[in-house]
Amino acid sequence: MSNLKIGIIGAGRIGKIHADNLLRHPEVEVVGVSDLFAGPELEAWAAARGIGLLTKDANELIQHPEIDALFICSSTDTHVPLIKQAAKAGKHIFCEKPVSLSVAETAEAIEAAAQAGVKLQIGFNRRFDHNFKRVREHVEAGTIGDVHIVKITSRDPNPPSKDYIQVSGGLFIDMAIHDFDMARFVAGSEVTEVFAQGSVLVDPAFAACGDIDTAIVTLKFANGALGVIDNSRQAVYGYDQRVEVFGSRGSVAIANDYPNSAVVSTAAGIVSDKPLHFFLERYMGAYADESRQFIDCLVRGTALPVTGEDGLQAERIAAAAKLSCKLNRSVKLEELDELLLQSAQG
Amino acid sequence: MSNLKIGIIGAGRIGKIHADNLLRHPEVEVVGVSDLFAGPELEAWAAARGIGLLTKDANELIQHPEIDALFICSSTDTHVPLIKQAAKAGKHIFCEKPVSLSVAETAEAIEAAAQAGVKLQIGFNRRFDHNFKRVREHVEAGTIGDVHIVKITSRDPNPPSKDYIQVSGGLFIDMAIHDFDMARFVAGSEVTEVFAQGSVLVDPAFAACGDIDTAIVTLKFANGALGVIDNSRQAVYGYDQRVEVFGSRGSVAIANDYPNSAVVSTAAGIVSDKPLHFFLERYMGAYADESRQFIDCLVRGTALPVTGEDGLQAERIAAAAKLSCKLNRSVKLEELDELLLQSAQG
Amino acid sequence: MSNLKIGIIGAGRIGKIHADNLLRHPEVEVVGVSDLFAGPELEAWAAARGIGLLTKDANELIQHPEIDALFICSSTDTHVPLIKQAAKAGKHIFCEKPVSLSVAETAEAIEAAAQAGVKLQIGFNRRFDHNFKRVREHVEAGTIGDVHIVKITSRDPNPPSKDYIQVSGGLFIDMAIHDFDMARFVAGSEVTEVFAQGSVLVDPAFAACGDIDTAIVTLKFANGALGVIDNSRQAVYGYDQRVEVFGSRGSVAIANDYPNSAVVSTAAGIVSDKPLHFFLERYMGAYADESRQFIDCLVRGTALPVTGEDGLQAERIAAAAKLSCKLNRSVKLEELDELLLQSAQG
Amino acid sequence: MSNLKIGIIGAGRIGKIHADNLLRHPEVEVVGVSDLFAGPELEAWAAARGIGLLTKDANELIQHPEIDALFICSSTDTHVPLIKQAAKAGKHIFCEKPVSLSVAETAEAIEAAAQAGVKLQIGFNRRFDHNFKRVREHVEAGTIGDVHIVKITSRDPNPPSKDYIQVSGGLFIDMAIHDFDMARFVAGSEVTEVFAQGSVLVDPAFAACGDIDTAIVTLKFANGALGVIDNSRQAVYGYDQRVEVFGSRGSVAIANDYPNSAVVSTAAGIVSDKPLHFFLERYMGAYADESRQFIDCLVRGTALPVTGEDGLQAERIAAAAKLSCKLNRSVKLEELDELLLQSAQG
Repeated sequence: MSNLKIGIIGAGRIGKIHADNLLRHPEVEVVGVSDLFAGPELEAWAAARGIGLLTKDANELIQHPEIDALFICSSTDTHVPLIKQAAKAGKHIFCEKPVSLSVAETAEAIEAAAQAGVKLQIGFNRRFDHNFKRVREHVEAGTIGDVHIVKITSRDPNPPSKDYIQVSGGLFIDMAIHDFDMARFVAGSEVTEVFAQGSVLVDPAFAACGDIDTAIVTLKFANGALGVIDNSRQAVYGYDQRVEVFGSRGSVAIANDYPNSAVVSTAAGIVSDKPLHFFLERYMGAYADESRQFIDCLVRGTALPVTGEDGLQAERIAAAAKLSCKLNRSVKLEELDELLLQSAQG
Repeated sequence: MSNLKIGIIGAGRIGKIHADNLLRHPEVEVVGVSDLFAGPELEAWAAARGIGLLTKDANELIQHPEIDALFICSSTDTHVPLIKQAAKAGKHIFCEKPVSLSVAETAEAIEAAAQAGVKLQIGFNRRFDHNFKRVREHVEAGTIGDVHIVKITSRDPNPPSKDYIQVSGGLFIDMAIHDFDMARFVAGSEVTEVFAQGSVLVDPAFAACGDIDTAIVTLKFANGALGVIDNSRQAVYGYDQRVEVFGSRGSVAIANDYPNSAVVSTAAGIVSDKPLHFFLERYMGAYADESRQFIDCLVRGTALPVTGEDGLQAERIAAAAKLSCKLNRSVKLEELDELLLQSAQG
Repeated sequence: MSNLKIGIIGAGRIGKIHADNLLRHPEVEVVGVSDLFAGPELEAWAAARGIGLLTKDANELIQHPEIDALFICSSTDTHVPLIKQAAKAGKHIFCEKPVSLSVAETAEAIEAAAQAGVKLQIGFNRRFDHNFKRVREHVEAGTIGDVHIVKITSRDPNPPSKDYIQVSGGLFIDMAIHDFDMARFVAGSEVTEVFAQGSVLVDPAFAACGDIDTAIVTLKFANGALGVIDNSRQAVYGYDQRVEVFGSRGSVAIANDYPNSAVVSTAAGIVSDKPLHFFLERYMGAYADESRQFIDCLVRGTALPVTGEDGLQAERIAAAAKLSCKLNRSVKLEELDELLLQSAQG
Repeated sequence: MSNLKIGIIGAGRIGKIHADNLLRHPEVEVVGVSDLFAGPELEAWAAARGIGLLTKDANELIQHPEIDALFICSSTDTHVPLIKQAAKAGKHIFCEKPVSLSVAETAEAIEAAAQAGVKLQIGFNRRFDHNFKRVREHVEAGTIGDVHIVKITSRDPNPPSKDYIQVSGGLFIDMAIHDFDMARFVAGSEVTEVFAQGSVLVDPAFAACGDIDTAIVTLKFANGALGVIDNSRQAVYGYDQRVEVFGSRGSVAIANDYPNSAVVSTAAGIVSDKPLHFFLERYMGAYADESRQFIDCLVRGTALPVTGEDGLQAERIAAAAKLSCKLNRSVKLEELDELLLQSAQG
């Protein structure tokens, strides 16, 4: 009865989320899961879900004759080769963000998918969140007129481990990449120029890794609008993800999500609970919706909601932000390739 | 592998919700479903969920040797006989609210379950809602001290059909019953006295059925606290369910749930979307949690979160409210049985 | 240059507020002030404001040939005789609430003013508050359609002294009188029936004085709408005065006023400052506006915004509430006079 | 009886506000007012306030033997010469912002006041606003720990006239100067580096004047913190002035002020009134408080709340922002003087 057979590469936190969301669709069958650390624990997990195939070898899924599409949820460094192989094998692809730490390699992966004629969706889950989606709807509907200013606040509740920082590619490509995509999404226009300032204020470990933990990025859009993103690796009150878009006819702003709406008034003040702390909690519905739309695209031919090109543009902005920070000047996207070349040579 | 085998009596809107929630538990098997209107549509629904048995005869489930527990989701007039039969057959019972339109019959049903030694949980789903639960937690934790005033706002988005009104038992037993339970739940004390005022302001159809559509109910609690509930059958802006508990050390209040947090500021004003409109949307999580706790009770022996006694007390308050409205005076719960007797005779 | 000469009887807290507000109007001259406790302190206060006449004898003001209008801000028991004398002397009158503790005496005072053809405004300051006024505007504009439910929360930050409680006339006439007036004001309809429940939960001193400190009052309006007021003598988080009016096309609700809008988010939660604690702080603008409108009425012939009749109606509701509490039944306003007679005789 | 005699130079909108605020202090006498456009209208205004001296010649006030202090509220180009003359005449000075359009001239004016030993307060009124003040208090109290990010939103309700734009000095010195001061005020640290991006999105008139109407400014503070300000000359929903300070232990954020708290819920959505539209409305209390503190400084010797140095620093940041925009690169404050020199020569 199922119309779509899917394999999942990488059964970490996010791969498991996707699996559970896919399993809720009667038209989808999760045929197999691959993970380098497949073992008794994952076996039990797969068995409880009726997933018949568990392997350490992603190739078993890529070459599996029945599988139509692959979810690539393994570590970032494996994305590009896996996309190329999957594309070659004619499988449709859902790939987690970022596609890679290299703009050039990401472009190659996208090209491979295009050549093979397979669909490639990138995991910018926030586009599917009830709040961010509503901002986009208002902008598209013209509620706020022409866009003048996009403001994004994006702060994580806790910094990652030092091990993770070292391979993360840095704050801009690892964390702010979501915000760069969001900026394009809500502005409805391409970013043309980036200026970024960064500091190490949360933990010296970031400096030790050549990274930053706090940043302000100014964006210029093709339509003349300006944007600004502020990032921190540690908001002690929880996950802080807000957007405001301001335009000629007004503004639209969204707040965080909260576990409840209880407001306590006592002699000590007016108090409510902190926002949802963890990204999986906050974006559970968005994850479900992004895979649903991927399925719809494959089964019903609807449009792909987030393309490889979206992945590439966000990475280009991230690369420009990193260079801007280093050069302490504004970087135009059109000069990025040359600057990256110089940077690689220098 | 499943530890608990369940049958569902009545596959209307709410029975289906329970089925889907139960199906998410690996330890539960939904063995069968009965519904007076079983036909091709329900067959397809059951098949898609792997439910093997679909019947028009509830008795098939009640007498089914493998079934451990029954969800009674059929119309209110069937609850009491079904509870008695299920109890006799040794099945545990989850029954939707209200148990019946008669305090005496509800008491009999509870007695039957007690005699048979089966568990009986009543479907006061709002106790499991993230917001109301938080109010209770704060009251229990002493955050607001001794309870002085309980305020409940409870307004439906749309009035029911005239057909429904006629068999509903009236606003107090059909709609406000949730609020009477909520009052006991958040106050942590029994209601001792009720004064109710009602009006027909929404639709003359209510008057034609001898019912009201707007009400204010004042409650007195055993601990001296006062309570007030306001009800309307029609809040055009959506489902409006709020609670405030005020005490010696402060207050705790909860607001409605919204589809998103977007705030639009234009020359016309500051605007946001209306609260969630439909009770299934608003309480989806609460429904899932009430069945989870019922399962936990049966499988792991945890305490039953809502008992038959809770169902009875809420119905007694509803009956007192109805009488108070009629007599235009305050009705003490302790005089209820006698007044009901007089009322039945008169 | 001044068009209006005013005398103030009673220079307590509220009399001084009125004086300072009046002094800001170039067209008004505060000719004199009388107070039983006139002494060096009040002399300094008057001198700093250029008020030439300070006396212990209210009659000096009442008989003063140049004075056009009197503000009666002395203790409640003096209001009726002062109104009668002032009316006889042809002075316009602004009188603080309540006019008296006796419905009959208040009616006599109003009659005296009417006979003398002098204006009589009652000090229901909250009608002039930016928030409550906005509720009324929305109701009048039809924004929320026909009024179905009026909800008023009215809680003081601190209970008064035992001395004050003893002469206050009780919670309904002393404190809830404002809410009874507010109910009529925002509903745009007369109250026809009252049911009140009271408890002593804050301080046994209230019981010792035959008073209550916590109450729920249900109102029925001539237009069929229902109302409910909850009162407490002690909200530890500050002055809590809110209104919600619900109708066929929606609702309008107002919140408390706060000293600032700062929201602090820390690991401990989301915290803001408590509402304005003191009624003078909260209603400073409303006091200024009520005297401004009184002046406008006298100087420019605009309509009196709060009449003696408004004062009387609020007192009648308060008397009905007190009786309802005592009789534990609903009291119709049309039976009030007879019940008061019985009560006086009984 | 008055301890302080004051003259006001410039009786435009803001000069009149200061006059009325000063007149409320019994210890202050407003001896005279000068205005280039003194005529019948101003004469009536002065007479109604008992201000005896009205002149077109500011020198009459500066040389007036009885005047202790001067409020300089005339056009920006007159500030520096007036400060120098007033200082020479030994008068204390309250001067509106900005002191001048030239950092060098402002420095001279400050030096003149210092040499003469007179007090010089600059009119950064927002520091005295109930909301912004509370932010500063929380930062100073350590509530949010070390400051990491300062975010300021500052948008005017309407663009000024073209005539005004031409002499305004541009968005940064005319409008954002308040925000630069606010940034220093709430961060508790000096700005060391500025990057600014500007656009013309509201009205081409700005481009015609060589100005911008929309801007994003990134700041770096001496303590390592980052800041960002977004400005627009036109927020159609009203005056939009908000601040958020984020730090190691949390954040504090303030919202706009509103005319009332009424929330209307209808089938069309949840609606409230727009924020206060006009700066005089919004900051009325702040204006009163800034002059009160100036008086306190002179009469009681309390500390000057905003110094000439504060005025100078804000102007230096504004100048750096203007240069940054022009050069499309980050500008360090320490290189400002040299860059300004180059800019003047080039």
